[in-house]
Amino acid sequence: MDASKPTIPVTLIPGDGIGPEVVTAARRIVEATGAQIGWEEQRAGAAVFKEGMPSGVPQETIESIGRTRVALKGPLETPVGFGEKSANVTLRKLFETYGNIRPVRTLPGVPTAFSDRNIDLVVVRENVEDLYAGIEYMQTPSVAQALKLISVKGSEKISRFGFEYARSEGRTKVACATKANIMKLSEGTMKRAFEKVALDYPDIESWHVIVDNAAHQLVKRPEQFEVLVTTNMNGDILSDLTSALVGGLGFAPSANIGNEVAIFEAVHGSAPKYAGKDVINPTAMILSAVMMLRYLGLFDEAAAIEHAVFVTLESGVLTGDVLGYDRGTPTSTYADAIIGNLGQRTEAWTIRDAKKLVLPALDPAPDYVRPTERNVVGLDVFVESPLSAAELGASLMELTHDTRLSLKMVSSRGTKVFPPTGAMTETGDHFRCRFIIKETPGDLPDEDVNQLLARISRRHRWMHIEKLQEFDGELGFTRDQGEN
Amino acid sequence: MDASKPTIPVTLIPGDGIGPEVVTAARRIVEATGAQIGWEEQRAGAAVFKEGMPSGVPQETIESIGRTRVALKGPLETPVGFGEKSANVTLRKLFETYGNIRPVRTLPGVPTAFSDRNIDLVVVRENVEDLYAGIEYMQTPSVAQALKLISVKGSEKISRFGFEYARSEGRTKVACATKANIMKLSEGTMKRAFEKVALDYPDIESWHVIVDNAAHQLVKRPEQFEVLVTTNMNGDILSDLTSALVGGLGFAPSANIGNEVAIFEAVHGSAPKYAGKDVINPTAMILSAVMMLRYLGLFDEAAAIEHAVFVTLESGVLTGDVLGYDRGTPTSTYADAIIGNLGQRTEAWTIRDAKKLVLPALDPAPDYVRPTERNVVGLDVFVESPLSAAELGASLMELTHDTRLSLKMVSSRGTKVFPPTGAMTETGDHFRCRFIIKETPGDLPDEDVNQLLARISRRHRWMHIEKLQEFDGELGFTRDQGEN
Repeated sequence: MDASKPTIPVTLIPGDGIGPEVVTAARRIVEATGAQIGWEEQRAGAAVFKEGMPSGVPQETIESIGRTRVALKGPLETPVGFGEKSANVTLRKLFETYGNIRPVRTLPGVPTAFSDRNIDLVVVRENVEDLYAGIEYMQTPSVAQALKLISVKGSEKISRFGFEYARSEGRTKVACATKANIMKLSEGTMKRAFEKVALDYPDIESWHVIVDNAAHQLVKRPEQFEVLVTTNMNGDILSDLTSALVGGLGFAPSANIGNEVAIFEAVHGSAPKYAGKDVINPTAMILSAVMMLRYLGLFDEAAAIEHAVFVTLESGVLTGDVLGYDRGTPTSTYADAIIGNLGQRTEAWTIRDAKKLVLPALDPAPDYVRPTERNVVGLDVFVESPLSAAELGASLMELTHDTRLSLKMVSSRGTKVFPPTGAMTETGDHFRCRFIIKETPGDLPDEDVNQLLARISRRHRWMHIEKLQEFDGELGFTRDQGEN
Repeated sequence: MDASKPTIPVTLIPGDGIGPEVVTAARRIVEATGAQIGWEEQRAGAAVFKEGMPSGVPQETIESIGRTRVALKGPLETPVGFGEKSANVTLRKLFETYGNIRPVRTLPGVPTAFSDRNIDLVVVRENVEDLYAGIEYMQTPSVAQALKLISVKGSEKISRFGFEYARSEGRTKVACATKANIMKLSEGTMKRAFEKVALDYPDIESWHVIVDNAAHQLVKRPEQFEVLVTTNMNGDILSDLTSALVGGLGFAPSANIGNEVAIFEAVHGSAPKYAGKDVINPTAMILSAVMMLRYLGLFDEAAAIEHAVFVTLESGVLTGDVLGYDRGTPTSTYADAIIGNLGQRTEAWTIRDAKKLVLPALDPAPDYVRPTERNVVGLDVFVESPLSAAELGASLMELTHDTRLSLKMVSSRGTKVFPPTGAMTETGDHFRCRFIIKETPGDLPDEDVNQLLARISRRHRWMHIEKLQEFDGELGFTRDQGEN
């Protein structure tokens, strides 16, 4: 220990299955660089779930991370029958680590379909919003619904993060992948946020790509991407795709970064069948530790490890995931080889010059967007009914004709089915009934909403209501297939 | 014309951009096989939008398809500023073509990173549900929401379709890709439906794969898949990924099949910059026509075209997308070459023996699942508020303490923030407030719902309500991150 250098506290979570083995490998290599880390070892995962804690994360662990603000963690398992939520997701959400960073690059000696290509890209995935919130309802006994929530602020924050991350690594291109062509409000929010933020980074080339095309392009010509910013669910799929381009999850590091806390972890799971066998590839965890060192400002130590990993791979020292588990280098031997190669440099493979990442600072006000004018112009009432669309439509018109709202249409899974369109749309037991205020312009008070609901309740079973709003003259809702 | 054979009517939609060129190529080749098709040429797309029809599909086209029940169509464009919805999606939804089939296979002479691999798989994508319904609301000025709707019936239907499709082509493996680990109700509905339906097909090997892992595996080892059944949004991304494995969208055919109608189309867009230049690759449209011929029972004609395409590609006749647009074979010449090769057979590339596809027949009752017992046990009220979670929680408790419901928690994007958890969760202007019925077991009548809403309206702005239901003792809603 060098008493003139400060010791940096880091929470260390070995995790489940092969977690302790890969975390030990990473820790030994970090220590061998001389980085002065004060590890606080903490628990989370399977054993904690089994003790009856439904989050899988004990209070001491939460407090440790709250103190150190940095964690290096192994994979956590949610044992079947214990807890509804993944402990990995819980940690990300508890500490609002909104930026998930998943870098991949072509590695020496690792054979893939893309070995001869120069892939070096980073997926920057929004990490706390979107369908991952897991907010779900059975609307009827036959129809499930999940809510996809995307905020303007969350989208601007991750977009800005993407550009800042690019700058911190000297990258010059940032793309954004969304499905804004189909989901104009939710995915469109991310697209618009990205395009707005891009204006502040004129030195960086930026463009938008539709997410299915992004998946296509990542396979066809992955070299075109440097940084790819995207929403949570898209990013989940795209980042797992990219890790396959360079040799699989054994080589896929990640970071979850928020304003207060950063958590570094391999992407892979706990692989229980390999646990304790000293055969697993620890590269993903080692490269996660490299990301951590850069986050902590220990750039030389980070570069030293990255060089040593490349020199080791170049020399043909490879683990079982690449060579076959009967022939691979053991985990501990592989870590020893990297430690032995510390101080060596590879010429063929560049290591990026990294700078400290600047985290975005956004307006902390809760009402991030403030319209000057707003109105409630109608109501969508979701109804469970065994009736046909025509019968339901007629009944609703009769029930509500003397209210301040009129029935505009009934739809089934986004397609208008009443008034009839002549199409072959199948209906089930789940209908959305759109009511629009009669006087325009108008703003519907809650008393009228309640009156409408009371009328509908006389004969029908509703389970879900959405107010139709207008903000500064812009519709806050989409039209349906077949709606004019 | 052979008067002893019936003429089969098919609606032909040339479409926009390069559409007419690729459709003409496909039509000429189909006719050269001797297949007796009575083409009804119809319009849809850009020009129709510009005439002021917001769907992009004229009534005559809808009537023609309603008559012929089969369409071969080129790509349709939605010009910016006209119509909110894609005409392609409109056609799929109007005719309830719930099964989107996207086959890909390694092709002779087409260089890709996977050229030496034997890829031959089909993505079977649910085509009318899910986020593609495009049902969206601005919940607050800062927060957008899209609804992801997945039905039990829709999921069973597409699963059964996947197995039947496998049988029709003599395939022996069917996988299902979902995100059921995060969305247990919505994506879980698809997983459960698939596993239930699989029991009826003991001769076919089946398994479930998490969708992000599916993307990973499709890049790492695509040969492991034969048929991959999935939900609409997942399928959108995965199928575009797979088309890149075999040479891009120029080679990606598709079919949209429902109980009544089938629409065959290339996956690619209208590529306006290549329109009228006789340079576009028509293979995707030609292979779509091959799928159509099989659907119509014209198996020999289909096989003849498929052989001729393979012989042509093997001979090195390739279009501009592969060779560069200055050096590629013109579209019309490429079609001529295929016509010239009709009757020839390739030995190196197998053509599958196809049988008529058996479409699933499901219980037509609207209430597809019928619970014997059901209760409304609470209410989620979504509130827009500039308050902190603690302030909002306290206010709601005060407003509602003497109702039949009690406030259980307030959450922000799926994470509990009241009562406080000690976590660093950021809040915005969008909160979900969960109220649970006090007496248990209980079933909340609508009057009590209305009373609660009236109380909340006194001080707060709500925009969205979800009833919390239980069906046969099972919770019809998910718990939150941090909720016990």
